[in-house]
Amino acid sequence: KVIWTLLVTILGYASSLPVGDDSICTAEELAKYSIIFTGKWSQTAFPKQYPLYRPPAQWSSMLGVTHSSDYSMWKKNEYASNGVRDFAEKGEAWVLMKEIEEAGEKIQSVHGIFSAPAISSGTGQTSTELEAHPRHPLVSFVVRIVPSPDWFVGIDSLNLCEGDHWTEEVSVDLFPYDAGTDSGFTFSSPNFATIPQDTVTEITCSSPSHPANSFYYPKLKILPPIAQVTMVKLKKNQLGLSAPFINPPAKSNEVIDSVL
Amino acid sequence: KVIWTLLVTILGYASSLPVGDDSICTAEELAKYSIIFTGKWSQTAFPKQYPLYRPPAQWSSMLGVTHSSDYSMWKKNEYASNGVRDFAEKGEAWVLMKEIEEAGEKIQSVHGIFSAPAISSGTGQTSTELEAHPRHPLVSFVVRIVPSPDWFVGIDSLNLCEGDHWTEEVSVDLFPYDAGTDSGFTFSSPNFATIPQDTVTEITCSSPSHPANSFYYPKLKILPPIAQVTMVKLKKNQLGLSAPFINPPAKSNEVIDSVL
Repeated sequence: KVIWTLLVTILGYASSLPVGDDSICTAEELAKYSIIFTGKWSQTAFPKQYPLYRPPAQWSSMLGVTHSSDYSMWKKNEYASNGVRDFAEKGEAWVLMKEIEEAGEKIQSVHGIFSAPAISSGTGQTSTELEAHPRHPLVSFVVRIVPSPDWFVGIDSLNLCEGDHWTEEVSVDLFPYDAGTDSGFTFSSPNFATIPQDTVTEITCSSPSHPANSFYYPKLKILPPIAQVTMVKLKKNQLGLSAPFINPPAKSNEVIDSVL
Repeated sequence: KVIWTLLVTILGYASSLPVGDDSICTAEELAKYSIIFTGKWSQTAFPKQYPLYRPPAQWSSMLGVTHSSDYSMWKKNEYASNGVRDFAEKGEAWVLMKEIEEAGEKIQSVHGIFSAPAISSGTGQTSTELEAHPRHPLVSFVVRIVPSPDWFVGIDSLNLCEGDHWTEEVSVDLFPYDAGTDSGFTFSSPNFATIPQDTVTEITCSSPSHPANSFYYPKLKILPPIAQVTMVKLKKNQLGLSAPFINPPAKSNEVIDSVL
């Protein structure tokens, strides 16, 4: 229990740092992981402008990839690719899948794509399997926040390899990002292209610093995590099917957050 | 080209028959496939009540599984499981994933789950990889029609194994099904539970036989296919990434259908 909490804390912290450690992975063989995404976007935790209708708060499909440090799906403070823009604005995965495919063909920087089904509410879970390779030990993914102008959560280049072995389990708290391609301020803002395109930025309770913003909570120090992702290494020949599911996806799975 | 057309024709026909051939698969090892789903739900092909706003016509995530004849995801003229109901009504995959997981644990009838990202328009494509096993050579999947009461397209138990070898490529035209759990008649009908639950039925241009039905086209003999799925066997160590994509996902990819 303590180790678990520690793990979450360390990794939650690590995820906010640039990765970029080009430490060589000397682990043998491939590693399979179960990846479980848990939405924590409840009306209790995020009461402001919480989307209830047409559409209610929900999550898009997850689109992810295992790759080397020669590939980057998205990065804070850099411009989003056309694929990430399409995905963040519309949940349309095609262009992003083609971009990944091209990186895989041209410079062998990609091992495999994975995706998990959408979630039809702000809380709830989805999961899938992914395969990491010693030359492709990094994981990145995106999940669109629905509805929103171009907001998403995700992981950028999390390293699953620790020297000569694979991480057994990691869990990371996720916070909202703005893809920098649509200037809408609220979950249900109409389309309004940002020209010129801005970089990918984290959305916090104080930035953008404008009362109209859906995540603007001036009384909070930090936003509660809007989602969480957990990756658990599977034993050889173990099906992802039998991976542990950590929480039931109860509709009443409200985040109890003492900050609020 | 001729062989291709023949293949499509044969398999399009085969898919409408019950599968149930318990011919033993003696193929060696696993087979990996790229599975490509192409939406053909255009306003040209399906002009009646075509959904343009909130939400416009689109497709949910694909959720599928490779399995033995001891498992069935869904079947025409049988009752949908709770998981299929949740997926067909709301695109919520969780319960269906748990059902598949339980079948995998209890009677080893399941090899693996796969999913592909949603498509944000009625036309367009999505894809993923799947792995078939000699003892689990059947493929089933569902994709929800959005918006709709409880309508979906899918494949039920398509056998990828032909005696001692794996099928190289198959393509199947898809037509809409009603999960039998919601009595809505049109794409945008409000929720209206069917009590008692009805069985899964194919929706045709004449059934349900009511002018209000969104797919009711009394002048047509058959509906044009609303989608198509293609599975292509991957070579060993070939990434699904490099699988051929058959058509570009052009927004203007309207189905030209001589029946209309």
